[in-house]
Amino acid sequence: MTYCVAALVAEGIVFASDSRTAAGFDDIATYSKMNVFETPGERVIVILSSGNLATTQDVIARLRMRARDEQGGATRDGMLGIAKLFEAAQLVGRTLREVMSEAVPVQQQGVDIGCHFILGGQIDRKQPRLFHIYPEGNFIEATRDTNFFQIGEHKYGKPIMDRVVKYDIPLRAAAKAIIVSFDSTMRSNLTVGLPIDLIAYEKDSGRVTLRRRFDVADRYFSQLSGIWSAGLRRAFGEVPEIDWGEEEKE
Amino acid sequence: MTYCVAALVAEGIVFASDSRTAAGFDDIATYSKMNVFETPGERVIVILSSGNLATTQDVIARLRMRARDEQGGATRDGMLGIAKLFEAAQLVGRTLREVMSEAVPVQQQGVDIGCHFILGGQIDRKQPRLFHIYPEGNFIEATRDTNFFQIGEHKYGKPIMDRVVKYDIPLRAAAKAIIVSFDSTMRSNLTVGLPIDLIAYEKDSGRVTLRRRFDVADRYFSQLSGIWSAGLRRAFGEVPEIDWGEEEKE
Repeated sequence: MTYCVAALVAEGIVFASDSRTAAGFDDIATYSKMNVFETPGERVIVILSSGNLATTQDVIARLRMRARDEQGGATRDGMLGIAKLFEAAQLVGRTLREVMSEAVPVQQQGVDIGCHFILGGQIDRKQPRLFHIYPEGNFIEATRDTNFFQIGEHKYGKPIMDRVVKYDIPLRAAAKAIIVSFDSTMRSNLTVGLPIDLIAYEKDSGRVTLRRRFDVADRYFSQLSGIWSAGLRRAFGEVPEIDWGEEEKE
Repeated sequence: MTYCVAALVAEGIVFASDSRTAAGFDDIATYSKMNVFETPGERVIVILSSGNLATTQDVIARLRMRARDEQGGATRDGMLGIAKLFEAAQLVGRTLREVMSEAVPVQQQGVDIGCHFILGGQIDRKQPRLFHIYPEGNFIEATRDTNFFQIGEHKYGKPIMDRVVKYDIPLRAAAKAIIVSFDSTMRSNLTVGLPIDLIAYEKDSGRVTLRRRFDVADRYFSQLSGIWSAGLRRAFGEVPEIDWGEEEKE
């Protein structure tokens, strides 16, 4: 499995993904699930993916190939040329449908080739936007009320996201919360693993300024994990004992 | 859905279950998923269930009917007569297979009639034991290393269980942790709902002494929810900001 999450906040968008793929218990590999299309000063589009690796790689490869013409310039209708993020989400959905339709023989053998994408970013200082694209190629958009999307093994990390990641929290706090949600997920599920790729896109910067990879030996990540565990245990200690109503009985 | 959890600790066993069943978004009802077979001083057997309500009710009804003979005495091979908890798990598994085999026509219509059971307790001061019974009727037993089972919507509440509920924590602390895991689950998933039934079985007591139902207006539960939220936010505040390596870059 996979765990990817992105959150839209007032100051920008945070994206994070793990790098573990498991085609079987003895076939585990590391692939980045984060793809960035960037024209510094003009556009940043980040795509996260979960699901069948052959499908997601195929979709990303087609998007990359079609983003530039033979002279290396941005094509008008590719990821580096289109004028709106909504069109970028449409383009991913369309490309996904194209890949899926060519893979009908694979599906007929009972292989699940579906996948999910999260796409977000900003073009020309228009409003930053964030989308969740479904295996069928249609998509939904994040709002102030529903400002984050998770794909893959999302349930373990959802409680901390639900409590902390509101639209008005600072960008860096959202990034921290997302890394905490990775720590919770990885403790409870072996199919999500390091390294984690993290981007905090600062609104109106037009480029990726805050980017981080957390690898196995990462000091910050192991420190975070210990401090968060200790804080959780202290919080648990502060919860009062259950009142069993024994006094009333006796 | 449902969320049920039970934890075996040195001092006894804690059982908890929610009460929400959802046959559809507009068909939501309250059913206790906790069943107790008790002969005070001699045996306590608690069964939690998740999955198809028709199946789980049928299994429990047959177990109850067969526990007593026409004179009201305990039958030798029923839940109130058998000598070992292992046999109780076998009996539930066998009864489940019987119900499932009679429901083949329902399955053929594509209805998922599967269900899971957690069964635990103590008979005649033998070692308390805890089992997870699968839809196929086979089962596994809890150990010191793997000392809790969750069925239903288990992922949201697993991180806190993984961190806190070890075999050697006090019985009441295990009960508290389980209620916290319900709070996390209910915040992130609407299909799990109050009331929660909770039993903390004290080893060698041979009877249910600590029992509690948390209803919508329960003061302890809403207090716990607030204190836990505040503690989590404080723990989150203590986690240091992500080191983005900006100094190195500049």
